[in-house]
Amino acid sequence: MSKFWSPFVKDLVPYVPGEQPKLAKLVKLNTNENPYGPSPKALEAMRGELNDNLRLYPDPNSDVLKQAVAEYYGVQGNQVFLGNGSDEVLAHIFHGLFQHGAPLLFPDISYSFYPVYCGLYGIPFEAVALDEQFQIRVEDYQRANGGIIFPNPNAPTGCLLALEAIEQLLKANPDSVVVVDEAYIDFGGQTAISLVDQYPNLLVTQTLSKSRSLAGLRVGLAVGHPDLIEALERIKNSFNSYPLDRMAIVGAAAAFEDREYFDETCRKVIQSRELLVRELTARGFEVLPSAANFIFARHPQQDAAAIAARVREQGVIVRHFKQERIAQFLRITIGTPEQNQALLDALN
Amino acid sequence: MSKFWSPFVKDLVPYVPGEQPKLAKLVKLNTNENPYGPSPKALEAMRGELNDNLRLYPDPNSDVLKQAVAEYYGVQGNQVFLGNGSDEVLAHIFHGLFQHGAPLLFPDISYSFYPVYCGLYGIPFEAVALDEQFQIRVEDYQRANGGIIFPNPNAPTGCLLALEAIEQLLKANPDSVVVVDEAYIDFGGQTAISLVDQYPNLLVTQTLSKSRSLAGLRVGLAVGHPDLIEALERIKNSFNSYPLDRMAIVGAAAAFEDREYFDETCRKVIQSRELLVRELTARGFEVLPSAANFIFARHPQQDAAAIAARVREQGVIVRHFKQERIAQFLRITIGTPEQNQALLDALN
Repeated sequence: MSKFWSPFVKDLVPYVPGEQPKLAKLVKLNTNENPYGPSPKALEAMRGELNDNLRLYPDPNSDVLKQAVAEYYGVQGNQVFLGNGSDEVLAHIFHGLFQHGAPLLFPDISYSFYPVYCGLYGIPFEAVALDEQFQIRVEDYQRANGGIIFPNPNAPTGCLLALEAIEQLLKANPDSVVVVDEAYIDFGGQTAISLVDQYPNLLVTQTLSKSRSLAGLRVGLAVGHPDLIEALERIKNSFNSYPLDRMAIVGAAAAFEDREYFDETCRKVIQSRELLVRELTARGFEVLPSAANFIFARHPQQDAAAIAARVREQGVIVRHFKQERIAQFLRITIGTPEQNQALLDALN
Repeated sequence: MSKFWSPFVKDLVPYVPGEQPKLAKLVKLNTNENPYGPSPKALEAMRGELNDNLRLYPDPNSDVLKQAVAEYYGVQGNQVFLGNGSDEVLAHIFHGLFQHGAPLLFPDISYSFYPVYCGLYGIPFEAVALDEQFQIRVEDYQRANGGIIFPNPNAPTGCLLALEAIEQLLKANPDSVVVVDEAYIDFGGQTAISLVDQYPNLLVTQTLSKSRSLAGLRVGLAVGHPDLIEALERIKNSFNSYPLDRMAIVGAAAAFEDREYFDETCRKVIQSRELLVRELTARGFEVLPSAANFIFARHPQQDAAAIAARVREQGVIVRHFKQERIAQFLRITIGTPEQNQALLDALN
């Protein structure tokens, strides 16, 4: 380490994203991207934005997109926060909405960026063990905490927590912000955004990187009570006035407006998932019930890391986590039927 | 304030960016955008990126762009840091490279985001008065500090500090990181990047929002010793793995590669500035010597706020700051010859 680093830097343990290989030929089932491209209307909107106006700053409030999101979910514009990917939105949430007097709670198996944010902002946390079926047990979150966050469906398990359980959690924690990180909700769950008017402590985050096929554009959002949104706006406006560029604003807005394409591609991914689960089960894999665009699977007789290495040799990448409790699982993104077949072939 | 806000939020005083009016007809000389569009090659590169690959995450390291910047400046890739606009780069610098044991030093008249970042990260600071000609006096920075930062040319004054003075500052502060914020350097100064191999405590930031006409795309950068860059990478990878989207990476790289267009548009802006300075001087304005794409001017007999309001009525926006020492100045972005003429007409 260098004498020039601030006291915050030395102990940071950065997040390691899934590999983004530069070889085009690989079947990439490792970072939960959508196998289908973005809405053609999103591409068209961006094409219309590709002109000399790029010399001008974007709208710092991204009103066009805020409005599109608000209309889609039937909420008000001041209930919507936008960021440069949901990772940035999450970072601002950790900075602005979690208390330091009691530990933040999140599942022991969940998005591995959460403890990294805690490191960045000095937030104490406790990882709460999922039950033996890798499910969240709501009762375990009924104790002093500085906030609660979990992905729903959870990642990397794919398991869904029902809205009733989320309500129970919200009622049991009226003084804590409860963040439901819905990166994958569109592939099989019901959004908790329907609850934000009832629970001022609920914040729901989403991304356009998965169900809206725009990982390459970096857009994420949060929906909740205007007071929660205001905290995030204050942080954002003390950090970077213009987090969304002109292309992202119009592309994301058009993607929200094109409901038909969205519905169709989500349906196709879900169908492919069900088929892949059947095929893997037939090959002896155990697959957790998934409401996401990925599945979490293990083979009782085969080592997960060895399987990952074997399919990689055949040009298929899946994600393997070294964390002890899940070291025998693989997280497999749902691809097109052809990509899924390539995985099945590589397994043989 | 809400009980759900973290302790950091309540005292934040966010930055207020210049107005981004939604009326297309205004002559916008208030946010220092380039009057000329981006390089046609940058637009072309982005057009080539507008396809189904937007479903995939971008390269988290933006290697293509890092390489373009490194080649342009004759440095190594590990001396370059990239971010979502130079505001994000600056935020990470404040978080990762300034110490808290002594105050950060910056000029009393400078980029008004600096104290905002200090608020966000709890950094003590002292605003060091510019001299009576609004120049930085290097001697004033020779005392205990947790870091030094200043724009060069300074904003909103436009005044340039010579490289020799910067070297003097670097030598006098070997244990502090000295950040030279070169948002406007291409309009009349020499970059301090030529000094980074000599001074491990020097970090130079730049943006593509001004001289490269890509404010709408959000790309900024820092160049310095690999140790300084590593601190920034650690922060970035604990905050958001993918700050630059696919469009931004290819557009910005192409903009760096098109030197001819860059040189030509910078030259035109500089010529327009010299002409505008002459015209304003002829109308009784006092104009500080500018090496930027804006000028800082006052009229001895006319109130600055009143002038701003008057030209606004004629459809021309300039920027007026309420800060006491400069309340009688206007910051005027250099437009096209036609836009500058519109300002002169509105002044009559």
